[in-house]
Amino acid sequence: MQHGATGLQKLLVASLLTLFTCSQGLLMEGSKVNGRYPYQTAVVPFLSEVLKLGISAVLLQWQLRRNPRGTKITRGWGTAILFPIPSVIYLIHNNVQFYTMSYVDAATYQILGNLKIVSTGLLSWLFLRKHLSMVQWHALVLLMCGAATSQIQGCGEGCNSNGLAAPVQGYMLGILSACLSAVAGVYTEFIMKKNDDNLYWQNIQLYTWGSIFNAAALTLQDFKSGFREGIWIFSLFRGFTAATYLLVLNFGCAGLFISWIMKFGDNIVKVYATSSAMLLTTLISAWLFELQPTLQLLLGIVVAAISLQLYFLPPENVGHSPSQRAGLTSRSSSKSLDMRHLEKADKELA
Amino acid sequence: MQHGATGLQKLLVASLLTLFTCSQGLLMEGSKVNGRYPYQTAVVPFLSEVLKLGISAVLLQWQLRRNPRGTKITRGWGTAILFPIPSVIYLIHNNVQFYTMSYVDAATYQILGNLKIVSTGLLSWLFLRKHLSMVQWHALVLLMCGAATSQIQGCGEGCNSNGLAAPVQGYMLGILSACLSAVAGVYTEFIMKKNDDNLYWQNIQLYTWGSIFNAAALTLQDFKSGFREGIWIFSLFRGFTAATYLLVLNFGCAGLFISWIMKFGDNIVKVYATSSAMLLTTLISAWLFELQPTLQLLLGIVVAAISLQLYFLPPENVGHSPSQRAGLTSRSSSKSLDMRHLEKADKELA
Repeated sequence: MQHGATGLQKLLVASLLTLFTCSQGLLMEGSKVNGRYPYQTAVVPFLSEVLKLGISAVLLQWQLRRNPRGTKITRGWGTAILFPIPSVIYLIHNNVQFYTMSYVDAATYQILGNLKIVSTGLLSWLFLRKHLSMVQWHALVLLMCGAATSQIQGCGEGCNSNGLAAPVQGYMLGILSACLSAVAGVYTEFIMKKNDDNLYWQNIQLYTWGSIFNAAALTLQDFKSGFREGIWIFSLFRGFTAATYLLVLNFGCAGLFISWIMKFGDNIVKVYATSSAMLLTTLISAWLFELQPTLQLLLGIVVAAISLQLYFLPPENVGHSPSQRAGLTSRSSSKSLDMRHLEKADKELA
Repeated sequence: MQHGATGLQKLLVASLLTLFTCSQGLLMEGSKVNGRYPYQTAVVPFLSEVLKLGISAVLLQWQLRRNPRGTKITRGWGTAILFPIPSVIYLIHNNVQFYTMSYVDAATYQILGNLKIVSTGLLSWLFLRKHLSMVQWHALVLLMCGAATSQIQGCGEGCNSNGLAAPVQGYMLGILSACLSAVAGVYTEFIMKKNDDNLYWQNIQLYTWGSIFNAAALTLQDFKSGFREGIWIFSLFRGFTAATYLLVLNFGCAGLFISWIMKFGDNIVKVYATSSAMLLTTLISAWLFELQPTLQLLLGIVVAAISLQLYFLPPENVGHSPSQRAGLTSRSSSKSLDMRHLEKADKELA
């Protein structure tokens, strides 16, 4: 029963992911006091990893009680060693990101990050043998362009970016960063789909490593600061407000949605959900701060919406009919093909 | 023989139109002396109308001598009264443009002008019963977005535009102007395709009216200025340089290509040619003036290129295969349809 998911379920989870990702920016803003975060920011991802681990453990227990035979669990080193790798990739990614930011400004880094959309498609095709049609490849490039368009700094906005004038190393590192992030996603999809193990069992393995790596990062931070703030574990919730708890809950839920999508959907569904969230957040922010949305935002949203439609359009809506083939292409064989297309469509309708 | 045109011929004429439109901006720049035009600018469209009229008359004579039976010529008021109308529409359009420019700046006017791309599609569908597939409608909206993206005034460029902050009347007039321009195009396509009259005969009727209207505009201008510059007809070529003659020749050829496309192609082929020319001109200008092309220009070019491919993509390259239907859509009926798609494709390949 857990092995398949209907299109409606995928749409629901993708929409929830969009919604949750969308509210992350607003919650982060809301968790500030006097313009700064009154808590240790690295605690939030750690707590959300622990939360996901706890929820997955409870759900696995429930599954085991409800359907002990149908809940598949693979133990052994062969599978277990695959699970720390995503955390390792993210660790490398964070370091590359740090170096990139010393060459390019935040706005340029954000724009370069959209390369992840196309690199995710390429890596899915290379390593997961995901076949994409011509239109779907075009749709991915369009999503990248739409997202980047919305992030162009326009006339009159505070100009922090000098356009495309960063040093070449900055672009190289930005591209590397986008690829690493895609590699982590594609690798996670690979281990989630590798066998038909129960999703929650796979989650437990993933989040155990996630918790360990985040705890290690916090400890390292304490060492670096010479324990000025004490030991992180004794001041976990210091400075937390309702918004911070909601933020942890939000990150936790979003993470669970993502691993569901990795198992039953794919990375590209995730990419669409997060890109849509970025565009919606920008639109909502403009509305909240009573600013007029910029032309580039509106154009970006239209291009991304068309990309979404093209990617998920059922093939029967895509075909061209002969009457409109008066365009530039003209081949003797394509006409008969078109006719069959049309005849088929007629039969479908009848 | 004149009744059909191969895809290759259409591609050739469309490419020539792109090339000629592209060089118009550069020739106009080249015809300036000390930063201003040393000739009366309204003379250039008049002379190009006369040039087109002359070329069409010569070509018609040649056709009549070569193939007197195959060269169809319809005389009579019923058809003749249709030909001044495009000139009348352009006259109204020019006046609307003038009023629009008093509400919005040139940059905003140019961006609004891209609405013509979609309005041309809508009017072709309404009045010429042109059927467009879903993907082709999407492609038209994308072309509009791509063209508009390339025209966004970026960070650091001289800010003459205040973004989307013009008064509502300005937008309304801008939309009206874009629609009028589309109406003129669709109407011209209608009269060119209405019967199988010889193209050059139709051109003669079209350009006779074009010459008359342009001559009237020049005379009106003389009256308004109180004949300070004398009578326009006696100082036609005053201030002309080689670049100005080339400009007249360029406008003339581009006009002849357009009427060929109206007869054997359609307005949408023309829209793609002129939008591509706009993007190429911007790219070439950046290169000529040794400026770095802006991010918005590069994004606009990618989006427009994808639009072009999607619009003219043969249907057999568009279909999705079942393996990639793991996306959001899932219908019991669509699966079997996909299978038939694939089986058909297999047969095609065999």
